[in-house]
Amino acid sequence: MGGDHGPAVVVAGIARDAAEWQAKGVRFLLHGDQGAIEAELSRTPKAKPLCDVRHTDKVISSDEKPAQAMRRGKGTSMWNAVDSVRQGESHAAVSAGNTGALMAVSKLILRMMANLERPALVATWPTAKGFSSVLDVGANIDCDAQRLVEFAIMGEAFHRAVHGAANPSVGLLNVGSEEQKGHEEVREAHALLRESEVKLHYLGFVEGDDITKGTADVVVTDGFTGNVALKTTEGVARFVRDELRAALTSSWLSKLGALIASAGLRRLWRRLEAPDGAPFLGLNGIVVKCHGGAEAKGFASAIHVAVNLAQSQYASEIERNLQQLTKALAEHPEVREAPSETIE
Amino acid sequence: MGGDHGPAVVVAGIARDAAEWQAKGVRFLLHGDQGAIEAELSRTPKAKPLCDVRHTDKVISSDEKPAQAMRRGKGTSMWNAVDSVRQGESHAAVSAGNTGALMAVSKLILRMMANLERPALVATWPTAKGFSSVLDVGANIDCDAQRLVEFAIMGEAFHRAVHGAANPSVGLLNVGSEEQKGHEEVREAHALLRESEVKLHYLGFVEGDDITKGTADVVVTDGFTGNVALKTTEGVARFVRDELRAALTSSWLSKLGALIASAGLRRLWRRLEAPDGAPFLGLNGIVVKCHGGAEAKGFASAIHVAVNLAQSQYASEIERNLQQLTKALAEHPEVREAPSETIE
Repeated sequence: MGGDHGPAVVVAGIARDAAEWQAKGVRFLLHGDQGAIEAELSRTPKAKPLCDVRHTDKVISSDEKPAQAMRRGKGTSMWNAVDSVRQGESHAAVSAGNTGALMAVSKLILRMMANLERPALVATWPTAKGFSSVLDVGANIDCDAQRLVEFAIMGEAFHRAVHGAANPSVGLLNVGSEEQKGHEEVREAHALLRESEVKLHYLGFVEGDDITKGTADVVVTDGFTGNVALKTTEGVARFVRDELRAALTSSWLSKLGALIASAGLRRLWRRLEAPDGAPFLGLNGIVVKCHGGAEAKGFASAIHVAVNLAQSQYASEIERNLQQLTKALAEHPEVREAPSETIE
Repeated sequence: MGGDHGPAVVVAGIARDAAEWQAKGVRFLLHGDQGAIEAELSRTPKAKPLCDVRHTDKVISSDEKPAQAMRRGKGTSMWNAVDSVRQGESHAAVSAGNTGALMAVSKLILRMMANLERPALVATWPTAKGFSSVLDVGANIDCDAQRLVEFAIMGEAFHRAVHGAANPSVGLLNVGSEEQKGHEEVREAHALLRESEVKLHYLGFVEGDDITKGTADVVVTDGFTGNVALKTTEGVARFVRDELRAALTSSWLSKLGALIASAGLRRLWRRLEAPDGAPFLGLNGIVVKCHGGAEAKGFASAIHVAVNLAQSQYASEIERNLQQLTKALAEHPEVREAPSETIE
């Protein structure tokens, strides 16, 4: 029921790749207003045979606070979707609804893995080489070294499951490549990743421009820096796009040139698009957030992320590596004891 | 003598706007190898009458460490240029040399204002509305609330002097606009800027995408986040430019279109260019760093920054506002006593 466009986008998103879901044996359990959903399904014959509907007339609205959602969310479509993952009835939940509420409800129902305190959000950047996965981009503002290594572990498993890289490389975001640079937390995480038993393909420090160069498949940072990097990138991309449009409509000659080059320009816009669908990493269960304003194509992309994660070894890989991290921390007690305030 | 192209770029940079410097009474004292510099001057009759040469055959190389530069830099062209500011012989120093060495030498010779520990680097972003000034983008990794407010004070005076805005607006970079969001340091700085006697045109929190929107003239952040935002922006801009070039050469039709629209596209590249020349803010004296790879146009732009700062009330404005901050902190002792580790 969530997102700006409600069930229409969800059903149309399923229909886009209906043949693939049919072939893979993927089925969908749609939570929400039965009448509204069935009306959409009857208009969409490709999606209909793949879907079951679970009725509820309760919804979490887009302006509800996370705390309200946790107290009053029981029985809503969002709550039921996440709860069906806990009960083993579904392998993953996908929602375009209220992000804060989805995170709070998911955490409450599914609980976090191991020592994690809250889910990490991963964002996908298009790069010169394909895509890079950057995390955390939102929820974890202050991160100690252990948290950063946990992000590395989760991001690596995510990237393998979703982008098919056998051995994704991992970089730690910093302000320079020298060992003495950056926050204490970043330097400690660097030491842990290089020396520990957590066997990741760790490249060392990377800088902001390495994200779009595709230097590392997975770029690890705290939620404050990651969120600023993501929003800054969105801003720059929008600014360049607006300026390009202005430049190509500034005279009739430019307009003519743009018309003639339109196939190339369409290719450009496609290249700059990041796929939709960001999982909350670190939960005991798969929950994928789709952009609230997503159209069918975006929702379909989020479904692909959920299916790829559900059909991979993602959860067991993370669990195994988190156990290795616990061992490594026992061998490097100085990292665990390092003063690192976590203000949240 | 610094920069990738040595004295040729410095002399050509002066020559570009020789008429303006002549009219404004601006003169240049060039430090370095007399023979090399005079050879350039004799090839550049527009620059020659504006310049005096101060010979030295010592230089700081581009790979010298800051600590080496401080120990062994005496008598080099960089040292002498900064020292001429301390002696009152020059009003500002401009260099395209080794950044770390220039910062260390400047700090050693000129000393920091008030309580500041090290200079802040300001970067200029082109925006939908003109330019925004973002600081710190490099030197100050961990910043407490007081440091962030100092950046606001320095950035505001810089923006007025260089971009001519009478009352520049100031925003504090955060991950959301709500008061409870972000690091403790950011929330404390927000409280100080809103309530204190430091009379800035403070807008509150801004996010990463506000930088290119031009929401605030001056965007304040710690050096870690600012450096990541700057490098990420450079990476995204380069990626989009490369993709645009690829799209416009992908077929003969696209090539033809690009050729026809070339005036518009040239306008675009100009719009996306940030002016060169970043001052080290907070020194008792003006030192402007020009990009090492700058050509004459970039060096000319750095000279403009230096002249604008030297001919403004910039230094006295900063000093007055820093005094107001000291008063405000005395009235809000809780901010000064807040725990804020400064790891450097």
